[in-house]
Amino acid sequence: MTDFIPTPALPAPDIVRSAYMELVVTDLAKSRAFYVDVLGLHVTEEDENTIYLRSLEEFIHHNLVLRKGPVAAVAVAAFRVKSPAEVDAAEAYYRELGCRTERRRDGFVKGIGDAVRVEDPLGFPYEFFYETTHVERLTRRYDLYSAGELVRLDHFNQVTPDVPKGRKYLEDLGFRVSEDIKDSDGVTYAAWMHRKQTVHDTALTGGDGPRMHHLAFATHEKANIIAICDKMGALRISDRIERGPGRHGVSNAFYLYILDPDDHRIEIYTQDYYTGDPDNPIVTWDVHDNQRRDWWGNPVVPSWYTEASLVLDLDGKPQAVVKRTESSEMAVTVGADGFSYTREPGEERGFKMGSQL
Amino acid sequence: MTDFIPTPALPAPDIVRSAYMELVVTDLAKSRAFYVDVLGLHVTEEDENTIYLRSLEEFIHHNLVLRKGPVAAVAVAAFRVKSPAEVDAAEAYYRELGCRTERRRDGFVKGIGDAVRVEDPLGFPYEFFYETTHVERLTRRYDLYSAGELVRLDHFNQVTPDVPKGRKYLEDLGFRVSEDIKDSDGVTYAAWMHRKQTVHDTALTGGDGPRMHHLAFATHEKANIIAICDKMGALRISDRIERGPGRHGVSNAFYLYILDPDDHRIEIYTQDYYTGDPDNPIVTWDVHDNQRRDWWGNPVVPSWYTEASLVLDLDGKPQAVVKRTESSEMAVTVGADGFSYTREPGEERGFKMGSQL
Amino acid sequence: MTDFIPTPALPAPDIVRSAYMELVVTDLAKSRAFYVDVLGLHVTEEDENTIYLRSLEEFIHHNLVLRKGPVAAVAVAAFRVKSPAEVDAAEAYYRELGCRTERRRDGFVKGIGDAVRVEDPLGFPYEFFYETTHVERLTRRYDLYSAGELVRLDHFNQVTPDVPKGRKYLEDLGFRVSEDIKDSDGVTYAAWMHRKQTVHDTALTGGDGPRMHHLAFATHEKANIIAICDKMGALRISDRIERGPGRHGVSNAFYLYILDPDDHRIEIYTQDYYTGDPDNPIVTWDVHDNQRRDWWGNPVVPSWYTEASLVLDLDGKPQAVVKRTESSEMAVTVGADGFSYTREPGEERGFKMGSQL
Amino acid sequence: MTDFIPTPALPAPDIVRSAYMELVVTDLAKSRAFYVDVLGLHVTEEDENTIYLRSLEEFIHHNLVLRKGPVAAVAVAAFRVKSPAEVDAAEAYYRELGCRTERRRDGFVKGIGDAVRVEDPLGFPYEFFYETTHVERLTRRYDLYSAGELVRLDHFNQVTPDVPKGRKYLEDLGFRVSEDIKDSDGVTYAAWMHRKQTVHDTALTGGDGPRMHHLAFATHEKANIIAICDKMGALRISDRIERGPGRHGVSNAFYLYILDPDDHRIEIYTQDYYTGDPDNPIVTWDVHDNQRRDWWGNPVVPSWYTEASLVLDLDGKPQAVVKRTESSEMAVTVGADGFSYTREPGEERGFKMGSQL
Repeated sequence: MTDFIPTPALPAPDIVRSAYMELVVTDLAKSRAFYVDVLGLHVTEEDENTIYLRSLEEFIHHNLVLRKGPVAAVAVAAFRVKSPAEVDAAEAYYRELGCRTERRRDGFVKGIGDAVRVEDPLGFPYEFFYETTHVERLTRRYDLYSAGELVRLDHFNQVTPDVPKGRKYLEDLGFRVSEDIKDSDGVTYAAWMHRKQTVHDTALTGGDGPRMHHLAFATHEKANIIAICDKMGALRISDRIERGPGRHGVSNAFYLYILDPDDHRIEIYTQDYYTGDPDNPIVTWDVHDNQRRDWWGNPVVPSWYTEASLVLDLDGKPQAVVKRTESSEMAVTVGADGFSYTREPGEERGFKMGSQL
Repeated sequence: MTDFIPTPALPAPDIVRSAYMELVVTDLAKSRAFYVDVLGLHVTEEDENTIYLRSLEEFIHHNLVLRKGPVAAVAVAAFRVKSPAEVDAAEAYYRELGCRTERRRDGFVKGIGDAVRVEDPLGFPYEFFYETTHVERLTRRYDLYSAGELVRLDHFNQVTPDVPKGRKYLEDLGFRVSEDIKDSDGVTYAAWMHRKQTVHDTALTGGDGPRMHHLAFATHEKANIIAICDKMGALRISDRIERGPGRHGVSNAFYLYILDPDDHRIEIYTQDYYTGDPDNPIVTWDVHDNQRRDWWGNPVVPSWYTEASLVLDLDGKPQAVVKRTESSEMAVTVGADGFSYTREPGEERGFKMGSQL
Repeated sequence: MTDFIPTPALPAPDIVRSAYMELVVTDLAKSRAFYVDVLGLHVTEEDENTIYLRSLEEFIHHNLVLRKGPVAAVAVAAFRVKSPAEVDAAEAYYRELGCRTERRRDGFVKGIGDAVRVEDPLGFPYEFFYETTHVERLTRRYDLYSAGELVRLDHFNQVTPDVPKGRKYLEDLGFRVSEDIKDSDGVTYAAWMHRKQTVHDTALTGGDGPRMHHLAFATHEKANIIAICDKMGALRISDRIERGPGRHGVSNAFYLYILDPDDHRIEIYTQDYYTGDPDNPIVTWDVHDNQRRDWWGNPVVPSWYTEASLVLDLDGKPQAVVKRTESSEMAVTVGADGFSYTREPGEERGFKMGSQL
Repeated sequence: MTDFIPTPALPAPDIVRSAYMELVVTDLAKSRAFYVDVLGLHVTEEDENTIYLRSLEEFIHHNLVLRKGPVAAVAVAAFRVKSPAEVDAAEAYYRELGCRTERRRDGFVKGIGDAVRVEDPLGFPYEFFYETTHVERLTRRYDLYSAGELVRLDHFNQVTPDVPKGRKYLEDLGFRVSEDIKDSDGVTYAAWMHRKQTVHDTALTGGDGPRMHHLAFATHEKANIIAICDKMGALRISDRIERGPGRHGVSNAFYLYILDPDDHRIEIYTQDYYTGDPDNPIVTWDVHDNQRRDWWGNPVVPSWYTEASLVLDLDGKPQAVVKRTESSEMAVTVGADGFSYTREPGEERGFKMGSQL
């Protein structure tokens, strides 16, 4: 049933890592209060329409661009490539895929040079760049280190109706899958894939799309994530904590999901694992495994399955959202129609984990 | 409507702290696996019917007695008193209250000497003792320190229908209230009270009682509590994690609630605050404050409100449970009939917190 | 050789806890930068001569008074007593001891009411008070919580030539010893004693005195203390880190010692243990045990043994310092004349710890 | 003065990461007690002469081989390469360098297949392999997770007399330098270089060599490292803690150095930073910067500069050690002849850090 995206003949660009996201926000001051005052991201520069923010250990210009606009959406998910020539490679690759592309030698935002933006085959706005302004790497600026300090951008997460289709396209692009969720009928509900040596740079969550599920930042320790929750409680914005904190089954990271003023979802994440070996073992989870998304079996709130941010095309218009036709993970695991279990029936303990090594 | 328990003329015993609980468990081996293998409590001694366990920093004989029996229940909640004479004082005090008491010079369990047990006015089995065998204090035994090490017994929590009635009785007994939950109609839903210098040695949770809500142990750090959750996930017993982990509003402690094989509830708790000054400010929470029980606004699972352990009388028979007639906290805050809020209507932030200083 | 201080006939005041210290500092702005900007203590109030600071969980007016003056010294170590009547008791007690006392119904500093200050038998300026202005208890103000947040005042530490003499006087005053350091000849090098239920409210360190060795604040977790070190590194004031961080043998707490601009020593401390039972086991350490002061055997820098702050008399003049005649701990453990060991000779492991239970 | 190692014409093997070290130990039982009982490394397999150990998140056969032998030494530092063909590439590359090589299709140790070992131009025994037995990846085995759990092998550290010579050779091999220590005369004291995306897979420490300075394992959190120190104190082997714990200037990691029964040095390390971008900023430290090796200015114990393990040639004989002729870091920073400073003279704060971005 899946219509696969063909594999281009041209080589894929050499992608290094997920680097920044550009979010359109409806109230720049409210967003600034959230990202700077609450989360402590560091301002590289700003003007009345745009704020450029970065995490503590970042040395490129920014990890997050907040741009004021009428409709909240994700304008781009940007990846850094290995060299200037790889920007050319990206442009050629997507043209071969028949995608709309736009190239700007001076970049689309401040602090980024030569870049190409594309409307990718799944409908997502991607950017590929190499040139960027180097800024002070705040790694040792412990005088600026807050109790809930965000130290790196870790990944994106995208909602798309057909996960295997998206997976093949991303694998052709050079991403390697680290973990996925399937059922015994072969339906794939989600997949995580990486270029850098962590569990993921992006992931595909099965659902109505294209929409952006979340952007994730990393902390050093679990207590930093708890500090963010505590602070949101103190500010009486605990209703912006959507899910967690908890321990993921997939990725093994300690996590938290919060919502910004436009309901863009942000994940705070720490301590996943090294995936840099070529034969890194893939972990496949059964969708009915109650510990796959939260290792402690805490429920996934329905909004986490249903809500996500619109994404824009290269004209800045929201992309139409296509419904997922395969089983919804929420439907098969939550509520009267769904079921999940901690142990296989009849097993005192243990649970078949699929291809995990 | 409340029928208050009269204040005795005799002085209350000088209670030092909550010291141990005696639990009747239906399968001693399964309970041992839970408390020793999973939670890492240390065995002081054991035989085929009883296991005596203690936490890392304890120097008295035990903090927990597991005794095999046909019906899972709490046999006693035991407090240490300041001297041998205070055992006499306890016996006399409860006799004046008209309670059934039993005195055993050689104690009711191993490792405890002269003690008096009572069926208290709320129907709970209390014990008061001074003499106890000193055992090796494992404080510096880092060679025995697990990732989720339990370092102290912190408190008991009791379910009783009439909280103000119970509060007065416990205040007469010398307990001081640190925090409570009320509504604008004057209904008290719960209260926390202490003898030692932490938030509580016991608490009263409004509901059908007498039943024991939980027994709590403390850890050094929040990550120790996360480690317990992680381990329960690895053992595929995450379904025994009932609620949490999270940050309490009341007490400000980081917490977790888990269930033992008999569904006795155990709380793991850390980093509440000092209450030793005579004018320690009492904190009163509004029952509709969504951050009172979990500071992050995470829901309290219904079972946490409804389930609790039976308690025994001095003959070892389960005490009859009396229904609470006042509003149930669950009913006023959970589900269609209940409501709770993070901020007062019309308030950007903040929430009236009552008598908090 | 020891001339003991006689035991008064009058009852000792009921002391609740170590509450605040008043420090004379030579440059108020520099001290403010240290205590407020670096350490994050919270300002209750201030004027051009004095700053009143408190820790996060404090509800009385202050834990630290910085008062500008020509000579850096400790003006007072103040204890809270249980009631107004205990201020009378303190005054009478010290008069019976033949000490100089001064009573001020309106207190000696802002935020404190009726108080008595004394020049105690060891030459230390103590204050006893009950009345104090209650201020906002910042416990749940996670929006103000820094990475190295100081949450409570924990204790004082005093240098005095004759530790057994000081110990008896403090025991008469109602302090209970939790731990000490001795040698096989009966020389006592140091002792720790408490009123609240932690390891100490004050301690006696054998040496030339009276001088104040340090003031200690507590954090919630060990990582908070590491954050303070990291921040001092980032500010390029790592040379103000005097000793640590490390794990104490005595007290079992994780610790750090730093120096303020006047070389007043501040300890940052966390996770010692409960001492509230009347028969709390006393731990005696052998002075030659290499793990007594740092559990990991890291050396105690000589300045830690030799340097301390002057203390003032009630006229604000520095007290004359008397030399210790007994063995110096540094001399017997550090350098060519000193020796310390991790294990008893001939023992693969273990080390005789004295009276520890 | 430096005689550089020529750059081969053949391509360097594609090295993925530092993978394992083979240590010759004189008493296998004592070593087992150290690595398994104290440090908690996991046994993959063992016999009477050899033990194969791995860290928690490892999926290849082992990270550490302990082999019984008469002289304590390092037998090999092994790197994983990207594919079987890269083993061929490594063999050819080192032959072109004129190094002695030995190829074994069935590997040199259990769990490793086709591998080539070399006596490299600096005198170090390196191994390059791809094939390895996959074993259970214990990442989620929280039931096996100790308080001081070692989760990954992080790096090697090698002592060599001529750091620039070694640096060029390793850069030719494909390593990229992340940080180094120099002085204003151009002397290089040490350099850190990586293949995976952390600060280093190996480093060159200037000194008499070839000798192996240390092998490092990573933990998740700083408290895990503190737990190791605490446990060594409890076991009364604190004299095997050589240096630390502390925060590194170079790498920004939290660290600890301990000594095994043969005085092989092990580092425990956590939370350095991402180096995966092609233009990762190099950080150069001034050798006189007192915060370069310990960010808090704590001294580097002389043994850390002087002691290291012998390395073996391919016949199993210890390599002769050549003396360093350039300035010794210890001599220029420690003791009467050395000097280091926290701030540049005349600077209130700050310290010129060289090429750090």
